[in-house]
Amino acid sequence: MRWSQTFIPTQKEIPAEAEVLSHKLMVRAGLMRKLTSGVYTYLPLGLRIIQKVEQIVREEMNRAGAVELLMPIMHPAELWQESGRWSIYGKELMKLKDRHDRNFALGPTHEEVITDLIRSHIRSYRKLPLTLYQIQTKFRDEIRPRFGVMRAREFVMKDAYSFHEDEVSLDKIYQRMYQAYTRIFQRCGLLTAPVKADSGAIGGDVTHEFMVLADTGESEILSCLCGYAASAEGAESRIPQSSIEEKPKRLEKVNTPGAHTVEQVTKFLGVDAKRLVKSIFYRCDDRMVAILIRGDRDINEAKVRRVLSCDQLEMATAEEILQVTGAPMGFSGPVGLEGIERVADLSLQGLVNVVVGANEDQTHMMNVNFPRDFSVDRFEELHLAQAGDLCRLCGKPLTSRRGIEVGQIFKLGTKYSTSMNAHFLDQSGREKLFVMGCYGIGITRTVAATIEQYHDQAGIIWPMTIAPYQVLILPLNVAHQETMDAAVGIYGALIEAGLEVLLDDRDERAGFKFKDADLIGIPIRLTVGEKSLQQEQVELKLRRQDQVVKVHPEEAISRILEMVSAERAAIEGA
Amino acid sequence: MRWSQTFIPTQKEIPAEAEVLSHKLMVRAGLMRKLTSGVYTYLPLGLRIIQKVEQIVREEMNRAGAVELLMPIMHPAELWQESGRWSIYGKELMKLKDRHDRNFALGPTHEEVITDLIRSHIRSYRKLPLTLYQIQTKFRDEIRPRFGVMRAREFVMKDAYSFHEDEVSLDKIYQRMYQAYTRIFQRCGLLTAPVKADSGAIGGDVTHEFMVLADTGESEILSCLCGYAASAEGAESRIPQSSIEEKPKRLEKVNTPGAHTVEQVTKFLGVDAKRLVKSIFYRCDDRMVAILIRGDRDINEAKVRRVLSCDQLEMATAEEILQVTGAPMGFSGPVGLEGIERVADLSLQGLVNVVVGANEDQTHMMNVNFPRDFSVDRFEELHLAQAGDLCRLCGKPLTSRRGIEVGQIFKLGTKYSTSMNAHFLDQSGREKLFVMGCYGIGITRTVAATIEQYHDQAGIIWPMTIAPYQVLILPLNVAHQETMDAAVGIYGALIEAGLEVLLDDRDERAGFKFKDADLIGIPIRLTVGEKSLQQEQVELKLRRQDQVVKVHPEEAISRILEMVSAERAAIEGA
Repeated sequence: MRWSQTFIPTQKEIPAEAEVLSHKLMVRAGLMRKLTSGVYTYLPLGLRIIQKVEQIVREEMNRAGAVELLMPIMHPAELWQESGRWSIYGKELMKLKDRHDRNFALGPTHEEVITDLIRSHIRSYRKLPLTLYQIQTKFRDEIRPRFGVMRAREFVMKDAYSFHEDEVSLDKIYQRMYQAYTRIFQRCGLLTAPVKADSGAIGGDVTHEFMVLADTGESEILSCLCGYAASAEGAESRIPQSSIEEKPKRLEKVNTPGAHTVEQVTKFLGVDAKRLVKSIFYRCDDRMVAILIRGDRDINEAKVRRVLSCDQLEMATAEEILQVTGAPMGFSGPVGLEGIERVADLSLQGLVNVVVGANEDQTHMMNVNFPRDFSVDRFEELHLAQAGDLCRLCGKPLTSRRGIEVGQIFKLGTKYSTSMNAHFLDQSGREKLFVMGCYGIGITRTVAATIEQYHDQAGIIWPMTIAPYQVLILPLNVAHQETMDAAVGIYGALIEAGLEVLLDDRDERAGFKFKDADLIGIPIRLTVGEKSLQQEQVELKLRRQDQVVKVHPEEAISRILEMVSAERAAIEGA
Repeated sequence: MRWSQTFIPTQKEIPAEAEVLSHKLMVRAGLMRKLTSGVYTYLPLGLRIIQKVEQIVREEMNRAGAVELLMPIMHPAELWQESGRWSIYGKELMKLKDRHDRNFALGPTHEEVITDLIRSHIRSYRKLPLTLYQIQTKFRDEIRPRFGVMRAREFVMKDAYSFHEDEVSLDKIYQRMYQAYTRIFQRCGLLTAPVKADSGAIGGDVTHEFMVLADTGESEILSCLCGYAASAEGAESRIPQSSIEEKPKRLEKVNTPGAHTVEQVTKFLGVDAKRLVKSIFYRCDDRMVAILIRGDRDINEAKVRRVLSCDQLEMATAEEILQVTGAPMGFSGPVGLEGIERVADLSLQGLVNVVVGANEDQTHMMNVNFPRDFSVDRFEELHLAQAGDLCRLCGKPLTSRRGIEVGQIFKLGTKYSTSMNAHFLDQSGREKLFVMGCYGIGITRTVAATIEQYHDQAGIIWPMTIAPYQVLILPLNVAHQETMDAAVGIYGALIEAGLEVLLDDRDERAGFKFKDADLIGIPIRLTVGEKSLQQEQVELKLRRQDQVVKVHPEEAISRILEMVSAERAAIEGA
């Protein structure tokens, strides 16, 4: 492709709203343009990369035995009402009415649609297992779209769904998908870590996220030397016990005027936050629940949701707290708290002489001890894990890295087949619920994550396997006939040899073109200049290296082919 | 692919709402399933065909110098308001509000989005012409979706847009697109006719539709031996003059109680409909216009719209007619009609002694003559052309065929660049409006149209170039080891040779599998049976022919490769 014939609007300006590097570079390198908040046009260069990633995904899905189909974007509300997600999914579900005033959702995922398809067509266990996938534009009405395509409202996803007669079969396909995902990201040239994750609104029990490791990643990964790795939201951990050897002291009520945050209370009373117990109230579907947790720790709401088996979980309002405890927010505590479910985080175990709210305005209690002074319904792991916590598997401390989630796989179990009444007949002719799995990859997100992992000051550095073109040919002076003849000659020969080549035939200064070359990050650059040609030389350079190699123009083609193969082998053969 | 590993739910039942053959067969052959009215899931077999068509479209677009990009589905309302189409497009535009109550359209076409993109990035004539295209899911809120994917609410389109400095450049690219379209449909194996068309809501002056010829087509094509061809809506024609040699008679008012349709009036008065002049009232944007046309002809509203240069054209209500004429609907006429614009169709020229409404209840006038008894503002061609009308180019009679519109190309001119204020700087540094063209292909519609053209009683007959698989291998008895060994052997060898092969490994009766084979229409069928194998034979058959050829199993592979090449050459080499 000649640059002059395509549309690659590179620019120096960084869009004002771009917070992350991949967003900045995707705009600067002319890969995409914003149409409106969280909605982007993928320009020719950007689309080529997306299509490369899609092709790798397609090949690996097919190899894993999944079959491609294409489901609609418009979903009738009735299906989502059947699964219960019409309300649970909340405001992130894009909704619309047609001209007949019927309700539709724009699909963010397709569990309902595929379950409806399969329950209508598969009646026998003999047709199981079956894994279907699609590559499609999806919608999610993010409250605050940002980070470019990372948190967009319209984005490209691969989503796959598997149907099984039992958990054993699900385990097998789940494992196969896990391996396919590993291969997909490897073939894209990405360093990824599969981590245990939280299943969120999609539901299900077991789930892994695939994280592209990048310092700029928005997700925290906690991992252990033993091999355990999980997202901060998905991680389980033990909290190191504070070794306080104290005798329980006498319960004491103290005035704490104006101190209603952990910081204020600890400062006022001169105690460590580890000595505090926070009482946090949630409305969980229709009931109210108090969660007790150590003052220095945060609650993992995903764990709360799972432990309480609730669909809708919301923090209680100040008014509700006043009603339940008799005191304003900030002065709640477990002592004397009656008629309400109380669940304590494991961080409370072993604590002595703690500080809690007294359920009276401007008042706390000191030297509170369990079970002497209050009771709980049960202990559960409800804290958000953090670096320094201990691994649940081996007891060593967890360390923290950052990553970008690019894929997630779920064992859904019978969540959807139950709510949507999806049955088949097993070997003995009995009706059974389908056991399901689902498997997503953010295609456009993967492109952005690649940039987060592979870039330098000057721009993007594409891995050879997903680069929009393998080679950029840069004639220094397009007005010089010999230069252009040589450039066009090599260009034609490389295309003939099956490569994708971009010829920068723009009549611009060489410096400008070199800057653009670095910015858009094509792996191999071939420079053709008048002076070098006089010495029968052209210049070859890998984008990821500084070194420039001079070769005879006739040698350039074979050298480039070798370089492409070597780069590909380094990625795919790893 | 083994049939047992994929998902091809063939069925005998014809969906109740399926009116056309392609709809019936697409469901019966397991290509698609309805999710809701006008919205379909493309199943694995259907998607393979769609992707084949997409690939041909992509190759020919690229060859014609167009560059692929991908624009969003969600369009902010502001852009559509800028072009004026937010209201003009009407109820067929799917609209939604996001969580912040902002208005969006789901794109049916992308003139606004691409014009916005180009006006922001292209400032100089030196970057023109530029043609960009995308292959994408589109939305149109059809009032009555039907004919399966032919008139769906969600469908796959290729849409391309070209930008030019002048009409000369547009003409050149328009011509190139015309040729690309011809090649695309030829490569899909389709017999198509390019016809002059009406530009409808998209606007623009010159436009051609590409029609797949099929007796079941919903569009009428009028063509002439001289080469002229147009859709009924787009056709211009001369109406043969009735050779009535009469002297004007005396104007006469007659009572016509209860006769207010053409049929009733002609019957009541005993005159031919050609002797009647209908007066039809339209509200055209803000003004009222009377159209006069011969009693036996219909009005072509597209022509009216163009002639009156109006955006919104609606038939006047009975009430409005009463107000304007003083008489109820059915008794209107041009005599004495004052203070309202009157445009007469050319069909009125040369008429003598006609019958018109008298603008009095239950009354008509006879022996009305122009210009003796009434006047008009002007004569224009406003009639819907029909077979038997005379060609405007050569005067010979037009004949009628039926077709299915699968593509349309438009010279938009400056319609969008004017309303959206899209300029560039020309060679002399002056601001000029972009001249534009746009070019659409209904991808899913093309698949359906192919079925309308290629089928028989038993099912679909895919052209080799877009068939989902080139070969179907049908082992008669999958329990017979030798049969399966032979089938699987040939299957592997054909895949090795680069073909796409479907192996019907289902444990079903042979008759059932033969029926399915005919239904899904894979071009080549290879049957492997116990008896034939004993004679060292397998059976080869082209779906489009009855003849069965017996060959040695070892010879099968080379014979199949020859057949595939021959079928491809017959289509692409034509």
